[in-house]
Amino acid sequence: MKQQTTVIGIIGAGRIGRLHAENNASFPNVRIKGISDLFADEIKEWALSIGIEKIVKDSEELLLDEEIEAIFVCSPTNTHAAIIKRAAKLGKHIFCEKPISFSIEETKEILEVVKKANVQFQVGFNRRFDRNFFKIQQMVKKGKIGSPHLLKITSRDPEPPPAEYVNKSGGLFFDMAIHDFDMARYLVNSEVVEVFATGANLIEPYIKEAGDIDTAITTLTFANGAIGVIDNSRKAVYGYDQRAEVFGEKGNLNCRNDQLTSVELSTSEGIRSDKLKNFFLERYKDAYIEEAKSFIECIQNGTPVLCNGYDGLKAEMIAEAAKQSYLQNRPVSIDQLNGNLLLL
Amino acid sequence: MKQQTTVIGIIGAGRIGRLHAENNASFPNVRIKGISDLFADEIKEWALSIGIEKIVKDSEELLLDEEIEAIFVCSPTNTHAAIIKRAAKLGKHIFCEKPISFSIEETKEILEVVKKANVQFQVGFNRRFDRNFFKIQQMVKKGKIGSPHLLKITSRDPEPPPAEYVNKSGGLFFDMAIHDFDMARYLVNSEVVEVFATGANLIEPYIKEAGDIDTAITTLTFANGAIGVIDNSRKAVYGYDQRAEVFGEKGNLNCRNDQLTSVELSTSEGIRSDKLKNFFLERYKDAYIEEAKSFIECIQNGTPVLCNGYDGLKAEMIAEAAKQSYLQNRPVSIDQLNGNLLLL
Amino acid sequence: MKQQTTVIGIIGAGRIGRLHAENNASFPNVRIKGISDLFADEIKEWALSIGIEKIVKDSEELLLDEEIEAIFVCSPTNTHAAIIKRAAKLGKHIFCEKPISFSIEETKEILEVVKKANVQFQVGFNRRFDRNFFKIQQMVKKGKIGSPHLLKITSRDPEPPPAEYVNKSGGLFFDMAIHDFDMARYLVNSEVVEVFATGANLIEPYIKEAGDIDTAITTLTFANGAIGVIDNSRKAVYGYDQRAEVFGEKGNLNCRNDQLTSVELSTSEGIRSDKLKNFFLERYKDAYIEEAKSFIECIQNGTPVLCNGYDGLKAEMIAEAAKQSYLQNRPVSIDQLNGNLLLL
Amino acid sequence: MKQQTTVIGIIGAGRIGRLHAENNASFPNVRIKGISDLFADEIKEWALSIGIEKIVKDSEELLLDEEIEAIFVCSPTNTHAAIIKRAAKLGKHIFCEKPISFSIEETKEILEVVKKANVQFQVGFNRRFDRNFFKIQQMVKKGKIGSPHLLKITSRDPEPPPAEYVNKSGGLFFDMAIHDFDMARYLVNSEVVEVFATGANLIEPYIKEAGDIDTAITTLTFANGAIGVIDNSRKAVYGYDQRAEVFGEKGNLNCRNDQLTSVELSTSEGIRSDKLKNFFLERYKDAYIEEAKSFIECIQNGTPVLCNGYDGLKAEMIAEAAKQSYLQNRPVSIDQLNGNLLLL
Repeated sequence: MKQQTTVIGIIGAGRIGRLHAENNASFPNVRIKGISDLFADEIKEWALSIGIEKIVKDSEELLLDEEIEAIFVCSPTNTHAAIIKRAAKLGKHIFCEKPISFSIEETKEILEVVKKANVQFQVGFNRRFDRNFFKIQQMVKKGKIGSPHLLKITSRDPEPPPAEYVNKSGGLFFDMAIHDFDMARYLVNSEVVEVFATGANLIEPYIKEAGDIDTAITTLTFANGAIGVIDNSRKAVYGYDQRAEVFGEKGNLNCRNDQLTSVELSTSEGIRSDKLKNFFLERYKDAYIEEAKSFIECIQNGTPVLCNGYDGLKAEMIAEAAKQSYLQNRPVSIDQLNGNLLLL
Repeated sequence: MKQQTTVIGIIGAGRIGRLHAENNASFPNVRIKGISDLFADEIKEWALSIGIEKIVKDSEELLLDEEIEAIFVCSPTNTHAAIIKRAAKLGKHIFCEKPISFSIEETKEILEVVKKANVQFQVGFNRRFDRNFFKIQQMVKKGKIGSPHLLKITSRDPEPPPAEYVNKSGGLFFDMAIHDFDMARYLVNSEVVEVFATGANLIEPYIKEAGDIDTAITTLTFANGAIGVIDNSRKAVYGYDQRAEVFGEKGNLNCRNDQLTSVELSTSEGIRSDKLKNFFLERYKDAYIEEAKSFIECIQNGTPVLCNGYDGLKAEMIAEAAKQSYLQNRPVSIDQLNGNLLLL
Repeated sequence: MKQQTTVIGIIGAGRIGRLHAENNASFPNVRIKGISDLFADEIKEWALSIGIEKIVKDSEELLLDEEIEAIFVCSPTNTHAAIIKRAAKLGKHIFCEKPISFSIEETKEILEVVKKANVQFQVGFNRRFDRNFFKIQQMVKKGKIGSPHLLKITSRDPEPPPAEYVNKSGGLFFDMAIHDFDMARYLVNSEVVEVFATGANLIEPYIKEAGDIDTAITTLTFANGAIGVIDNSRKAVYGYDQRAEVFGEKGNLNCRNDQLTSVELSTSEGIRSDKLKNFFLERYKDAYIEEAKSFIECIQNGTPVLCNGYDGLKAEMIAEAAKQSYLQNRPVSIDQLNGNLLLL
Repeated sequence: MKQQTTVIGIIGAGRIGRLHAENNASFPNVRIKGISDLFADEIKEWALSIGIEKIVKDSEELLLDEEIEAIFVCSPTNTHAAIIKRAAKLGKHIFCEKPISFSIEETKEILEVVKKANVQFQVGFNRRFDRNFFKIQQMVKKGKIGSPHLLKITSRDPEPPPAEYVNKSGGLFFDMAIHDFDMARYLVNSEVVEVFATGANLIEPYIKEAGDIDTAITTLTFANGAIGVIDNSRKAVYGYDQRAEVFGEKGNLNCRNDQLTSVELSTSEGIRSDKLKNFFLERYKDAYIEEAKSFIECIQNGTPVLCNGYDGLKAEMIAEAAKQSYLQNRPVSIDQLNGNLLLL
């Protein structure tokens, strides 16, 4: 049987854009026709070496290319809305890095346009494709622990982003915890209805100066009655700490962190082993591959993507509720968000 | 050098009273002179076999025995106040099972009497003497993780107590989570200043009918700026789940649960290992021994006990704040408790 | 129902004799009437504090005491033969520390006497009562891994014994690996038929000077076709390393070492945890209790002991084969031992 | 700086040839110009999809292609000698899958030719590039455990190869354990001087009928005084079991197996987790990438390969000694092999 090939374009060649490019380059069923970036000249040699023919500054050149069927949107968040709407209207399938936008209103608008255009739209919640979290979710769905009672997510970055990034990041809840809010819905298989968030500034003064926090504990209440908690820190000196646990009537599901190696050195001082994998590029290396593979398969088979625009919107709504809860020091229900949605 | 022997009496021969009796019986530096219980006849053979000579119904007989230097108070919580006050006035050192009482006012009164009597007073927060939690606390104190940022405690019982117990237990926060509230102060080495608690009824209807909850997530804010979270469940089918973790600027400290054995069976189905130890008597077997040893040593050496009345009071105050927070669905600061303290 | 009480005597109050005394003192169904030791005066205070009434120099006083039903033989190996024979003839049940003797001929003689006397005779292979090894053995017996193919035992002491001990120890195979030879038979549930041993002197010169080795790998062939290997070292600086693994047609069984605590400290340097438990008294603390409990139960119920004289003899025969194999650098079958059995 | 590109050809498109092709296709500094296979037609579509232009039946076409600088020899072992000699004479660098040949004499001849041609020659001992084993080796070299005393390798395949493969495999020692013999030299950093091997037929009758064994324990003595042991089985139903441990005067180094996920399901039945990764393609996925990357780097930088022809020869000599030891049931020294080297 002849294998189907999907022709794609990538918008943005920063860290995450290059990652998607290199992953797609290794898939036998994908051809990356073009990539666009403001600094097109600087990425030329790299892009050619992985077989991309069209290297341009203006994303419009990719959007207008009729051979290109799908677009990976890897440019800054403030460019997402315009690109997605344009791509949707031109009938391209869309993979969009998270968050869709910084405004729930704008995200809703985008989803409307995408819906009318009837194209595939996948949001980049890469952790859904991590082998461990995927397995936990599958086992919850299969009823291995009965009905879920408690969710626990630990999500700690190895080091805080620089001040300039923090300033335009949307804050800890929108930039970092948004992945955990998606993971919460995904693992418990139920919607979040209420949020209580406690935050602290314990790491870098410039984070406080930016009006942001660096440490947080967020309690979630789910529609199915379960309750959950997420703890976040911007600085875990031992590496990227990513754990999840779902506890239910018939048992508990949890997974370990990945260490650099599993080697143990036992001496008269005790037992020593490696730090955790450093950050998301290392830890979720395979998850990014599975995420892109899944998107391509859904395009080729016409099946629903595993992480759609609604998932993106919902995570943003939880982030907004968490932000308001933290600022007001009170529980905030997701319903209360209506009418007061602009974030920036 | 001649070894010192401390003569003790035990009030109450229920599960925990018998445990303390058997542990003390194995210490070369302790003589258990007497034990009192309403059902003195039924425990006679057992008590004789471990060398206790005086087996009585009325605790007063032990309290008036001049040879007895220290009393273990293992009777129901509602008898604590009278016994402790009487023992203190008679100059006996006191070991009291938790909680001291169900009323913060009453606990404060008791502590006043004990203070005036100038006797040793240790509260039975046995987990402080667990080798794992003790080590975490020591390492936090030594600065191994720098200043603490996040505390996480998981504390889940293997099965809920019967309805009759629930009814007079004081509720999940006072009966069960109180151990975790003490552990929180102990591990972070700072006072709790604010509490937010979310609860749920997911396990047994009779718990709800008793006006109690069976599942909870409690967020704590500490005086030193750290934040923490405790998750509780009355029913973990895989055994007694007891974990703690302290995260700070320089690292993370955590410990594993104890399984029945460390045997792994690897087959074509995967890898299987044992359930956790069943409940507190098994899991904290050694901790109970260390707890009693430490009390005896403090008496013999005149050094301060490692878990005193103030610790007992503080844990009760956090429990009260958690209860009010849950009932009112808002954060409650410990200071707000003043003036509104009676619980039952 | 009235509980049965067994009256025992202990011969030898060295490290292991005192251990058995303290353990038995805590059993409600045992009374230690007497203990004998050359240095009876020095142990008097200790013995009284755990309730032993008769503290004598001459073991004969215990053997002739008609109230004493069972004897724990904890004196040096070269005294075993005389004591056991005498005790058996006087109708006492016998618990004997390993090895029974240093001579297979002598051990055989002893077993004859014991058999004729029709008393219980248990050999002190304490590891059979370790919760982990016991569970592995049970699961092998239940067929959880089908027929066994491979056995692996790692057995490493934390530090070598002093020169004076080495000189009269019988050598690594008789003094140390003998426990592993018993464990091999126990876990595989089949007899050893051939042995090949490789040894080395890598640790302390005085061990070599004593004609002994400090490091060994011993390959075993079992009657059921399985093969196995034991690795021994006299010096594991990270603690007492005791592991076992049985691999078969349907799977693998293995267990972990016990660490002092399960606390992990994660820092920018990696993850650190505790050393292993230091040596046999710590690691097999519970196993020694179970071992003695089991012996007492077998006496009280008239059931066969779980580790009898034949087990002691067999382990000695494997040790002898290993020693000859090492000296001759060739495989030695257990059958070849006949006719050439004296060791010292 | 302009990146260097190495042009390679691959001989043989079986499982391992395709793996090397796909890995090299993803390297920005490698161009695969051609691949040869008897079934060239069948691999055409796959080869084109990863960008290989020249797909031929006869390896000679690749060898004569002047643009091709390096050859990956992935054809059956009996074709290695002719191809390697030809490639070497034509000045190509060579990567050769293990074993180099089935005859130590022939391997020696090949190494002579390669040496004269002065080309790079790397042997496919992929495990040297596994992150865990590599780390153990580095730490041994750095002296983290002082001088090595004991080596332990567990190496068990998930299922036996089919009868037709077994017949021409060279036997367990040459086909399977050869990787472990290389690992032994690599981890201990010393040559093997004597071998004792015990084997058994416990799995499939057709293995015995082929004159081969399916289970083995091999004891190794090293030039530096250390001793070691390898246990092999052709059938571990729980997955590909690959462990290594080096014990020395200052400590112990060991690593865990990789499971499919790290998810644990705790229920009233106990704790369950996943099987091990299935076989070498999954377990050593990253190691194969590192192996090829390292070969390309050595070519581009003119530095010595990390696993050369001498390493290939030495592993074969240990395999031969193991085979003879097993057949003769006696220890065989590597020196004894001189004069009696032909295996098939």
